[in-house]
Amino acid sequence: MNNTPTRLLIHGASGRMGQALLRLAAEDSLLQVVAAVVRKPPAQRVVDGIPHFAASELAGVPAFDVAIDFSLPEGFDPVLALCAERGAGFVSGTTGISERQQAALTAAATRIPLVWATNFSLGVAVLAELVERAALALPGWDCDIVESHHVHKKDAPSGTALTLGEAAQHGGADPRYASLRAGDIIGEHFVQFTGLGERVELVHRATNRDIFARGALHVAGQLVRRAPGQYRVRDLVAPPANA
Amino acid sequence: MNNTPTRLLIHGASGRMGQALLRLAAEDSLLQVVAAVVRKPPAQRVVDGIPHFAASELAGVPAFDVAIDFSLPEGFDPVLALCAERGAGFVSGTTGISERQQAALTAAATRIPLVWATNFSLGVAVLAELVERAALALPGWDCDIVESHHVHKKDAPSGTALTLGEAAQHGGADPRYASLRAGDIIGEHFVQFTGLGERVELVHRATNRDIFARGALHVAGQLVRRAPGQYRVRDLVAPPANA
Amino acid sequence: MNNTPTRLLIHGASGRMGQALLRLAAEDSLLQVVAAVVRKPPAQRVVDGIPHFAASELAGVPAFDVAIDFSLPEGFDPVLALCAERGAGFVSGTTGISERQQAALTAAATRIPLVWATNFSLGVAVLAELVERAALALPGWDCDIVESHHVHKKDAPSGTALTLGEAAQHGGADPRYASLRAGDIIGEHFVQFTGLGERVELVHRATNRDIFARGALHVAGQLVRRAPGQYRVRDLVAPPANA
Amino acid sequence: MNNTPTRLLIHGASGRMGQALLRLAAEDSLLQVVAAVVRKPPAQRVVDGIPHFAASELAGVPAFDVAIDFSLPEGFDPVLALCAERGAGFVSGTTGISERQQAALTAAATRIPLVWATNFSLGVAVLAELVERAALALPGWDCDIVESHHVHKKDAPSGTALTLGEAAQHGGADPRYASLRAGDIIGEHFVQFTGLGERVELVHRATNRDIFARGALHVAGQLVRRAPGQYRVRDLVAPPANA
Repeated sequence: MNNTPTRLLIHGASGRMGQALLRLAAEDSLLQVVAAVVRKPPAQRVVDGIPHFAASELAGVPAFDVAIDFSLPEGFDPVLALCAERGAGFVSGTTGISERQQAALTAAATRIPLVWATNFSLGVAVLAELVERAALALPGWDCDIVESHHVHKKDAPSGTALTLGEAAQHGGADPRYASLRAGDIIGEHFVQFTGLGERVELVHRATNRDIFARGALHVAGQLVRRAPGQYRVRDLVAPPANA
Repeated sequence: MNNTPTRLLIHGASGRMGQALLRLAAEDSLLQVVAAVVRKPPAQRVVDGIPHFAASELAGVPAFDVAIDFSLPEGFDPVLALCAERGAGFVSGTTGISERQQAALTAAATRIPLVWATNFSLGVAVLAELVERAALALPGWDCDIVESHHVHKKDAPSGTALTLGEAAQHGGADPRYASLRAGDIIGEHFVQFTGLGERVELVHRATNRDIFARGALHVAGQLVRRAPGQYRVRDLVAPPANA
Repeated sequence: MNNTPTRLLIHGASGRMGQALLRLAAEDSLLQVVAAVVRKPPAQRVVDGIPHFAASELAGVPAFDVAIDFSLPEGFDPVLALCAERGAGFVSGTTGISERQQAALTAAATRIPLVWATNFSLGVAVLAELVERAALALPGWDCDIVESHHVHKKDAPSGTALTLGEAAQHGGADPRYASLRAGDIIGEHFVQFTGLGERVELVHRATNRDIFARGALHVAGQLVRRAPGQYRVRDLVAPPANA
Repeated sequence: MNNTPTRLLIHGASGRMGQALLRLAAEDSLLQVVAAVVRKPPAQRVVDGIPHFAASELAGVPAFDVAIDFSLPEGFDPVLALCAERGAGFVSGTTGISERQQAALTAAATRIPLVWATNFSLGVAVLAELVERAALALPGWDCDIVESHHVHKKDAPSGTALTLGEAAQHGGADPRYASLRAGDIIGEHFVQFTGLGERVELVHRATNRDIFARGALHVAGQLVRRAPGQYRVRDLVAPPANA
């Protein structure tokens, strides 16, 4: 078994997610951050052993296996292009990308393995798979999705609730949604299948935002072994269903 | 599509489950009870259109597709033998059967399709499958199973909790159990996978005992199309995972 | 301690609630049904030891301590008048009564102890009290109420959810509501108070409709010891907070 | 209304709780930390406007209204003595104190208002009150307490579960306990009252350790207005039940 660490480029390393990625990658001996792309590199250039670069210096970063990008739509194109050019994997959680950028992802997926997602929690990815399976197995049962988030969240239902709802629809269910906004809840998703005299409830609770960075690092570690293509987080969580 | 009703023999039709099977089968146009085997057949022999028989008259029952048996260990052998002889499916929820009787099931399964189970709830069957999948997908997460039942239930953990625990173990988890005994709870099973900063909860709640009869009837309806073999309830819940 | 049974008049004894009241009262040695008022009294007049009467014969019923009324608005006035005249307690769950009938309740409450309510579950009554107390104790926390009922329930939020919401408002909270309609759920009410970094959840789950009849019988048994006045179920659940 | 800030002494300010107390007190304009007692005061003595002291310098701290102590048993006696001497309130979450130290608390409570507790979460304090009330109101219902904590927690049931159990016992219930140890769960307490056909569930979930510091600060702010005596957190959460 090959234990050579996966070499990572962190793009958007100044942001909250970027900082979490650097902190958590440092705890994992199978990951090695070889470059951090930040808004404004520090004078000394190397911090905690990690070379820092400005976006304008992207072409000069050393060899890497996977880039993880949590940045802004305007920074998205160059890092995707770099990955395609170098044959590296690409993991992005950058939100607000355009249709053109979505098309660029699809095009790049013919050459490199990549993931673009809005929620990198492994638990949510597993839940989506379970929801689809439950919907398939329980035709005719009612399906309700209740999601709870902090009061500052504007959109409702949450993107994750909609993803779970799509999974339920793939399984043949017709989900309904309810949204609660309360306190500082990081995120809870509750999917309920109700039949006559019985009920199946599938729930995810997030209690720490680190799960999103942890999930992105996990996905990056899995991507390095995969063929080109566009993957979902749930495709990379663990051994496939029929392994 | 073939809409000929499945012809059922109900064995143990005097008991609580037997009564529920008769009541619920009458509501389903795809099922037809052609014989009810009871402790003491009524004088008029035919009740609500259903011919009633004593156990001693088993050999004389009309042609049937599947027998559903919720009786006692002493009644188990003749009805299993009858199914094997006639090439009919066999569904049994009779508890307390011996190792010899278990072996007879295995032997009969080479000739007829059959199911022996202690819980015929479809929701529980689906939950077992989801638990196994979650365990596979979430290696290293803690797995806890909490089950709640009425205060008259003597065994703990429940047989269903142990079945869910086996599913978790098949997926690589190492489940721990807790049991609550309170009020008249029909049955609740709560399986929790806990990682760092997130949790997935999979829950089944039974609120009406009819689900067990309903599940047995569903299984009987599915069994009629199957090849010989010993099936689990979860194998017959719905279209297989890769259908 | 006085163990003389409370003598009950059951008004509306032909209905589903009336039947449950007769069945459950027979199991309680501290209750004695002395008259059942039904749509059409049976020829033999006495069934299981209980004299049956038509509504038109109401004036002739024997002495009773409390009347329990689950009937229709058109039957409400005579039984309330009878209780007021005889100085008996009055418990009613009749829905759809008019403002004039509400006023008649208020007037009668100066002479007899009475309860009119839409939900006689003791658990719900206790929950309402806990919700008010939690709201008082947790100023500034967000309050959400989620109720789940069977798909045949038309109104939303449920009357019980609104009662719980009023309790929260008495405590100073500003509740929001969500309603799920699924399967054959008898009734679940979930009240959540969310602060920063913590949450208190108060939940009631009904799994058997008998709780409503059981609660009405309990309330009737308590009412017999009370002074005239209009009580809520929660006033009669158990010893008062500072007893 | 008096808006003069409450002057606080933080004893044990170097620890995790002490740091959280300093951080959260700085956000509350009604609180003013006038002294932080730490293991080793920094050379500059004043940090972020707060004078720092060594334990040996305790006698020289400026005037304060309430001391908050999260330290070790060996540091407990001097700070309690100081509060008693100065007539200041005392809030302590120091664990492992001896019977003699408990007796010292009781003695001091004749002169100053004080709180000693192992859990300063306001939600838990409210839950304890609700549990006692529910137990009183629901005699004969089964009471179960399930608590979940991270895998590093050694004791079971948790101290908080036992406190909730005592509240249930005060209300006449006979609670049973189950404990789950999983992942990094900060703390969840689930109290269930089960009757026939219905159930009341009372739940507290902690998602951020700051709630303990926040609760201690809240208690300190309330204590300043109270008469001498030993209070529980739940006595100080909010306006009393009959206010």
